[in-house]
Amino acid sequence: MGGDNGPGTVLPALAQASELHPDVRFLIFGQEEIVRPVFDRFPILHNRSTVSHCDVAITMDEKPGAAVRRGRRESSMWRAIEAVKNGEAQAAVSAGNTGALMAMSKVILRTIPGIERPALAAIWPTLKGECVVLDVGATIDITPAQYVQFAIMGQAYARCVLGFSRPRIGILNVGVEDVKGSENIRDAAGILHESDLNFIGFVEGDGIGRGDADVVVTDGFTGNVALKTAEGTARQFATMLRESMASNLFGKLGYLLAYRSFAALREKLDPNASNGGMFLGVNGIVVKSHGSADVGGYCSAVEVAVEVAKADMAHAISQDVEEMRVLLENAWAERLD
Amino acid sequence: MGGDNGPGTVLPALAQASELHPDVRFLIFGQEEIVRPVFDRFPILHNRSTVSHCDVAITMDEKPGAAVRRGRRESSMWRAIEAVKNGEAQAAVSAGNTGALMAMSKVILRTIPGIERPALAAIWPTLKGECVVLDVGATIDITPAQYVQFAIMGQAYARCVLGFSRPRIGILNVGVEDVKGSENIRDAAGILHESDLNFIGFVEGDGIGRGDADVVVTDGFTGNVALKTAEGTARQFATMLRESMASNLFGKLGYLLAYRSFAALREKLDPNASNGGMFLGVNGIVVKSHGSADVGGYCSAVEVAVEVAKADMAHAISQDVEEMRVLLENAWAERLD
Repeated sequence: MGGDNGPGTVLPALAQASELHPDVRFLIFGQEEIVRPVFDRFPILHNRSTVSHCDVAITMDEKPGAAVRRGRRESSMWRAIEAVKNGEAQAAVSAGNTGALMAMSKVILRTIPGIERPALAAIWPTLKGECVVLDVGATIDITPAQYVQFAIMGQAYARCVLGFSRPRIGILNVGVEDVKGSENIRDAAGILHESDLNFIGFVEGDGIGRGDADVVVTDGFTGNVALKTAEGTARQFATMLRESMASNLFGKLGYLLAYRSFAALREKLDPNASNGGMFLGVNGIVVKSHGSADVGGYCSAVEVAVEVAKADMAHAISQDVEEMRVLLENAWAERLD
Repeated sequence: MGGDNGPGTVLPALAQASELHPDVRFLIFGQEEIVRPVFDRFPILHNRSTVSHCDVAITMDEKPGAAVRRGRRESSMWRAIEAVKNGEAQAAVSAGNTGALMAMSKVILRTIPGIERPALAAIWPTLKGECVVLDVGATIDITPAQYVQFAIMGQAYARCVLGFSRPRIGILNVGVEDVKGSENIRDAAGILHESDLNFIGFVEGDGIGRGDADVVVTDGFTGNVALKTAEGTARQFATMLRESMASNLFGKLGYLLAYRSFAALREKLDPNASNGGMFLGVNGIVVKSHGSADVGGYCSAVEVAVEVAKADMAHAISQDVEEMRVLLENAWAERLD
């Protein structure tokens, strides 16, 4: 049971999720002497949860490869993912080490047939609502066929979590014209234009938050930089606003009067509110909560896991990939030519 | 004389710049019948400017290659850059088509010996002040040696415009640990660690606005996405804030009271205030103003050009590149091994 805050955050979050989803059961993996005292304080969890003691806990700064070796079979992270593989759990949720979680998920669950590389998907608040952005950090460099695979996975996720029946899919690029970007990106766009997906073409960095697409596809390097740049800019804006308003009396009074509006805005843009990075492309559901998530944040990651499990998303992705198989094979053949 | 607003913005901006820098003279290139009537309204410009009529004007949506062919010798953009080449002007400023401006600059001015690819540099507001980010759109994909060249150019620009004597240089990456990112990025970091530059390692997306480095080096694809994502997020935040505050009476009153603070903040984060993308790596100074810049924005682009010309930045870059030549040659040799 990882994350920066541990059981003190996770267990109250599970209690909160229990009230919202009374039909959900929890398998809790962690160091019993730390977990049990907190667990005992939440009677709502007692009938619908089991606590399994694990000797090994993966730390936040452990390298993925080392974490897989040291944590194999014994660690709480391993056992949570293994429970998904064995069908004991329909989803795993962790606030722990992201790299370790991805590496273990790949080792234990394997990728879905037809998907070469997994992707980490984020829910991004926009002026129109929310969109899915993937990959935000799993796979640095991708081929045109992998862009297509990410588009299929992003579509499935947007359907499950955001309720779109036919989400508009765009590729993140440095301009919207066909000639922009790398050859890989232009090849990917060519394949997607010929597909049955609702592909709308290229989206620029400022188009993400404007809601230009419902699914924004990119490589893990660009997506990670974009996500962190947006989070950083939002924090920077908030800090500058606070400092700017605190610098004079009218500003301070204004801040007091507008306090409720600020609180509402903070909630809307809070990464905790749309918490739950989804690890797509493996045979099973693994949700990554922010390491610094608070109770509400971890609870929303659990809710994402519940929705996706109920919608049987992994199966939906397999089906879509199978339907796209001919298109993908042609894409592969073109690459090999 | 390009940009979305034309002479109606550019000439008042030159008048404003004239008051701030009485020693600066302007060579104005544009369609005389449009420029002259506006020019006549600003007596301050009359003694220190010439207007040269040009038949051809590059449009905002023209492709770079086509613009170079159609605009060769005759267009206002070509002639402004040519004036820099001939030594008639110390800098060119344009709010026109960015791609065309970069292509023409390369054709007319050529790259500095030792610099393989040019870069577009932006001034980015941070919590600590400002930093330089490059490349934000000139060169999509770069080699380790080109990262090093960009670092040298970024250092020269940060010295000239932001006044750092020994700016802290970072490479934009998906994590700060040595093992993160592509092989190219890690190779570049290896070379920079051995150099005399003040290289501080990797910077993440949220580190740009936090002010983790004074110069952030990246490829033109990632830099362009990061810049536009940040601009988009700032606009999104401002829109959501306004909507959120307008939704109740206390919010509206608060907004009125805090109005001056908002105005101060807007100015700080306004892309117009730190306007003037610098086109680095060619033999001469070419400044790109935002296409939608207002009078103040265009004036600040002119001021950037003045500062950089007075500091003789192109010469400083040549010298630094020469000093780094051994390091760069070793880097090249390693790549060819």
